[in-house]
Amino acid sequence: MADVDRSAEVVGDGPLPTGLVEAFWRYEQALMDDDVAGLDALFAPGPLTLRGDAAGLLVGHDAISAFRKGRGGAPARRIAAVHVRSAGDDAAFVVAVLEPRTGGRGQQTQFWRRDDAGWRIAGAHVSAPAPAVDGRIWRIVGTPLVPGRGEGPLRGERMAVKDLFAVRGQAIGAGVPAYLAEAPTEQRTAPAVQQLLDAGADLVGIARTDQFAYSIAGANEAYGTPPNAAVPGALPGGSSSGPASAVALGQATVGLATDTAGSIRVPASYQGLWGLRTTHGAVPTAGLLPLAPSFDTVGWLTRDRATLERVAKAALPGGSDLQAPVIVAPRLLAGLEPAVVDAFHAAVGMLVAEGRIEPPEEVGLADPVGTLAAFRAVQAAEAWRAHGPWLTAHPGAVGGAVAERFRAAAAVTEDGERAARDVLAERGAELRELLAGALLLLPAAASPAPSATASGVAIDRIRTATLTLTCLAGAAGAPSLSAPIASVDGAPLGLAVVSAPGTDVALLRWALRLRE
Amino acid sequence: MADVDRSAEVVGDGPLPTGLVEAFWRYEQALMDDDVAGLDALFAPGPLTLRGDAAGLLVGHDAISAFRKGRGGAPARRIAAVHVRSAGDDAAFVVAVLEPRTGGRGQQTQFWRRDDAGWRIAGAHVSAPAPAVDGRIWRIVGTPLVPGRGEGPLRGERMAVKDLFAVRGQAIGAGVPAYLAEAPTEQRTAPAVQQLLDAGADLVGIARTDQFAYSIAGANEAYGTPPNAAVPGALPGGSSSGPASAVALGQATVGLATDTAGSIRVPASYQGLWGLRTTHGAVPTAGLLPLAPSFDTVGWLTRDRATLERVAKAALPGGSDLQAPVIVAPRLLAGLEPAVVDAFHAAVGMLVAEGRIEPPEEVGLADPVGTLAAFRAVQAAEAWRAHGPWLTAHPGAVGGAVAERFRAAAAVTEDGERAARDVLAERGAELRELLAGALLLLPAAASPAPSATASGVAIDRIRTATLTLTCLAGAAGAPSLSAPIASVDGAPLGLAVVSAPGTDVALLRWALRLRE
Repeated sequence: MADVDRSAEVVGDGPLPTGLVEAFWRYEQALMDDDVAGLDALFAPGPLTLRGDAAGLLVGHDAISAFRKGRGGAPARRIAAVHVRSAGDDAAFVVAVLEPRTGGRGQQTQFWRRDDAGWRIAGAHVSAPAPAVDGRIWRIVGTPLVPGRGEGPLRGERMAVKDLFAVRGQAIGAGVPAYLAEAPTEQRTAPAVQQLLDAGADLVGIARTDQFAYSIAGANEAYGTPPNAAVPGALPGGSSSGPASAVALGQATVGLATDTAGSIRVPASYQGLWGLRTTHGAVPTAGLLPLAPSFDTVGWLTRDRATLERVAKAALPGGSDLQAPVIVAPRLLAGLEPAVVDAFHAAVGMLVAEGRIEPPEEVGLADPVGTLAAFRAVQAAEAWRAHGPWLTAHPGAVGGAVAERFRAAAAVTEDGERAARDVLAERGAELRELLAGALLLLPAAASPAPSATASGVAIDRIRTATLTLTCLAGAAGAPSLSAPIASVDGAPLGLAVVSAPGTDVALLRWALRLRE
Repeated sequence: MADVDRSAEVVGDGPLPTGLVEAFWRYEQALMDDDVAGLDALFAPGPLTLRGDAAGLLVGHDAISAFRKGRGGAPARRIAAVHVRSAGDDAAFVVAVLEPRTGGRGQQTQFWRRDDAGWRIAGAHVSAPAPAVDGRIWRIVGTPLVPGRGEGPLRGERMAVKDLFAVRGQAIGAGVPAYLAEAPTEQRTAPAVQQLLDAGADLVGIARTDQFAYSIAGANEAYGTPPNAAVPGALPGGSSSGPASAVALGQATVGLATDTAGSIRVPASYQGLWGLRTTHGAVPTAGLLPLAPSFDTVGWLTRDRATLERVAKAALPGGSDLQAPVIVAPRLLAGLEPAVVDAFHAAVGMLVAEGRIEPPEEVGLADPVGTLAAFRAVQAAEAWRAHGPWLTAHPGAVGGAVAERFRAAAAVTEDGERAARDVLAERGAELRELLAGALLLLPAAASPAPSATASGVAIDRIRTATLTLTCLAGAAGAPSLSAPIASVDGAPLGLAVVSAPGTDVALLRWALRLRE
């Protein structure tokens, strides 16, 4: 708790308001001491206090206080200069030039007001120097890392590739440091990457994934959890967390990712992106580290529908238009939070009211809980076959919920797997029959993005609820789109559309009616 | 000039001050129209108006206006939300959440005040979403790109390597896109890189250089000019521009670079860093793209002396302490701007007054202008031998002042080169004799960092003045340190110390007396 260096010159545009500079330094001292109570006291109480930084704008004293508690202290810094522009005796705009101990410069802008309780901050805006690269989002980045063909329909697009695909000259990291440390340099670029390079897109870099992609939360303890670009402080969604955050933040225009059980649709839903899980087998999975080959699919994340359609067209045949009616399955909504059900109905209702879609017909679906259980058993058995030997040889290399999941996966028996496959085959056939004549609408996730500080129990409950929705496309081998059409209290929620296998490009053309 | 979207909700904490919101939208419209006059009119006149962003804080209406004129328009964006916190009827703090068309979110914070002329902005703070990587500074970045040995004296250091050194698996780009496009993948890492990896430093990435390193300005039209972290809007200094900016911004802790004619000392001086040009031949130049082998040296940039000493010790033998007296050469100062001479004398005077060094003795130096001419002739002849064939085969691949310099280099005759070598040999011997018993103090550059918009003529004049100082170490093959001890109007200016060949580490230990 060293005293802060108060030697910086304070430049005003008139007499400095009484007590303001003292309050400024008191705040700085509390910040360097990580005195959360002291900082809370110097921010104005109530729901209107503002604090913004690169992660977004927090509104309200409570949100700001929660952020501070979770941060664990601000980086050490020196105040290099202070500028005060006042408005009467009781309000002032204060700009401080910051010199973090780790180099570079930042700026802290504050709006101070005085009332009977003294000087307090009504709003603040903080800029810290940027790192060379945000290691929560990326493993490696170039300008570009691999140039595209220089021409083609995707010329000018910047691709973030999930760290599961082979890129010539690079290793595959799979979100696990110990795996990366032993991974060989790839000699060939995966076809799913190459087809976008050939269509003209540049490869900007290799982006993070949840450990071995066996999660839909988007958290990664080893590398840090990528930020949610739409909801400050929320999980980004996974396992394609890095490509999703990169696209949402504008650091890439296309995320090349995978979706086994929702790994594209969930981050798309959490961050307000367009995301497509393709028909099983439609995009080659050579050069892709598997999770569960029966369900692994390649797909993409973008900020707008038109780009997603152009990407899909570069990778897949076009096919004829989709003319099918839309359907909903009330049973899928039964277990969801009322706010999510309301948001889904509101979005569908708006589309109907605007004449974009016909009112959906309600259909029955057999036992969603059983479908999920079967899906999870087969996924687990395949995941253990893919990674069990490596995990056994590297105890402790994978942690948290993913490690628990692999432990459970190791326990799936051959009989259990066989029985689950039988269930899934039946459900898949039923779904494909349904999808032959209809488009199924459902929420892309069971909730908007949970807080990054949510408990493991809460995350696991959300996971189960979401997988109940997302596993249907996996069971059917069908494509599924997540479109950023709905929202819950301002946080995005994807509207998912599942269509018949092979109708990927047609589904994106159809989605033009959802939003131009 | 489309009308801006004014649909964002404006949330106040009481009645909104009359006319404020209209002024806010007028500003937004002017910004989107790049109406510089309109923007200037909405910023308060005078020297106290503030505007800060990631590049630094601009103070005064003139500086802000000049920035705007040079920018060529702000990126297209939508205002997503507006928050107003007022202080009476005539002052308000306004925070806008920005949605750039290219993705991500930003924040614009303004302090508005009203007087007889209406509402105007007294201060602003703007945050734009960060790119995946700043391509002005870096070509490729990893987390890390190449891990260090995991232990050793440089463990935890993060290295930015100038794009002239071989890194296994990467090409050498040399600041020239056409050269990079044809460059082979390197099979071996240069020893100068490897020795720091072996000492434990991680290699963060490959950082920019001026074209073929044949400049000390730090500008690069193809990739953009790296920012000067210490002086907003100024040139970073070159040719080790990328490593210098990376270190100054805290994106790396060690810049591994080269200095042929000042390429480490000049960016160190411009950005307030410590920089060492080593004894000629002391650090191996294998795997380094040459510019002029008679003068090419490897060296480093850091933010503090202690790190620089640790790096030098990891690469070079220690040797005994330097006990020599300090000297200055008045003739070297004769042609410099008075402000620079004053800053140099003030810095030396302060060091003497604080008892850190003895008062320097004044010495004579033979014909600095002739020394520079000879240095430039030999450098040019060697540079043309190194790159002439490639440049001839690739007309237009290199542009601007560097292209002109190579054209002049092609015209150096064998006789001219021989005569210049004779002059240099004599001067070098004289200098080494002097340095055998003394440490020469001089400014590290002839000026603080010039503006990034300075004319070519102005830059060339500064170049000649600076090379007059920096070429001495090259002529003598001697090490030279630039220490961030002086300043001119708040902008850093390096204090250079030249010592006898082979005393590199000793020079850094000696420099402990300059600053702890």
